[in-house]
Amino acid sequence: MALSARNRLAGTVKSLDTEGLMAEVVVETDEGTEVTSIITGNSADRLGLEEGAAVNAVVKATDVMIENE
Amino acid sequence: MALSARNRLAGTVKSLDTEGLMAEVVVETDEGTEVTSIITGNSADRLGLEEGAAVNAVVKATDVMIENE
Amino acid sequence: MALSARNRLAGTVKSLDTEGLMAEVVVETDEGTEVTSIITGNSADRLGLEEGAAVNAVVKATDVMIENE
Amino acid sequence: MALSARNRLAGTVKSLDTEGLMAEVVVETDEGTEVTSIITGNSADRLGLEEGAAVNAVVKATDVMIENE
Amino acid sequence: MALSARNRLAGTVKSLDTEGLMAEVVVETDEGTEVTSIITGNSADRLGLEEGAAVNAVVKATDVMIENE
Amino acid sequence: MALSARNRLAGTVKSLDTEGLMAEVVVETDEGTEVTSIITGNSADRLGLEEGAAVNAVVKATDVMIENE
Repeated sequence: MALSARNRLAGTVKSLDTEGLMAEVVVETDEGTEVTSIITGNSADRLGLEEGAAVNAVVKATDVMIENE
Repeated sequence: MALSARNRLAGTVKSLDTEGLMAEVVVETDEGTEVTSIITGNSADRLGLEEGAAVNAVVKATDVMIENE
Repeated sequence: MALSARNRLAGTVKSLDTEGLMAEVVVETDEGTEVTSIITGNSADRLGLEEGAAVNAVVKATDVMIENE
Repeated sequence: MALSARNRLAGTVKSLDTEGLMAEVVVETDEGTEVTSIITGNSADRLGLEEGAAVNAVVKATDVMIENE
Repeated sequence: MALSARNRLAGTVKSLDTEGLMAEVVVETDEGTEVTSIITGNSADRLGLEEGAAVNAVVKATDVMIENE
Repeated sequence: MALSARNRLAGTVKSLDTEGLMAEVVVETDEGTEVTSIITGNSADRLGLEEGAAVNAVVKATDVMIENE
């Protein structure tokens, strides 16, 4: 399976915080940076997410902005 | 100025391809990964983007998905 | 691999129109409805998309709005 | 009124779950597929959503990704 | 018809630039500010957009970021 | 610092409602219109948001839809 989303950052789940309908997932990428995601709690359950799990943070290119120094 | 978007990946412009209204910017992050962004050509001009320029790739947490292995 | 995006509509590529950096993909779902996607031309090439190919249209739940009659 | 968003899937509210600020709406489309939406609880109230109500799931084309088999 | 998207800014089309698959629409709001939208050229045609036309710029609340001074 | 997002509406925080992981921020723009944003509670804390604070509502152009009368 290949997905059109251009960005896939490999890492592990550093923290998972589920409250109400939503879940905040902080991914520590293999390079040591952090990426924060908001998904639904149902998705977090479906994916069986837990701290330390190997995951990818996935982002569609049209959702990435550029900021210059 | 601080922005609510949770994700800011520092790097440099690896490539900038502007065609029609849109621009595809590939950022090589300081950690060596690549992040691809689609912005408008007008924004690329306004930011004065060029290869090698120091930039951040910025993403709102609600736009980040999680994929498990 | 499982993705947190909650919506996956199976179908085939009805039309693929690539111009400049972008590609417009119309998916005819297995149920006969149409879903239109804008992705980058590079993604369309990477996925080897062509008319008739079996694909899924994938949407994150936070990107779905509700309209009532 | 016409909206630029290209995707409108007609159906009925299969389930509505409101917790905190957010609401998770599952739409059963007329073709029998399910589409899940995350909107604000305020929007769910404003639209008077309830199970069985006739609604459309609406998605902008730039928010639709493509996944190939 | 009511849409769950929380933000609707009334105004008129100040400029419409269609190139390739995409269209850049600048809306001058009734209050005199400018809002820029990127939609597909097909949507611009379908809506019959032209300079001076009365329109709303519509944004889902999850797509709005906050920046402090 | 300049951000590629094309839309920046200046105003003040009219209301801030934080529940669970999310925060709903209503901005009254300098022109008197309202813009509603959903961000994470962590971002609202990080930005030190409070009623009356001077802020900008920021939106990427690809996230703006057009609706005609």
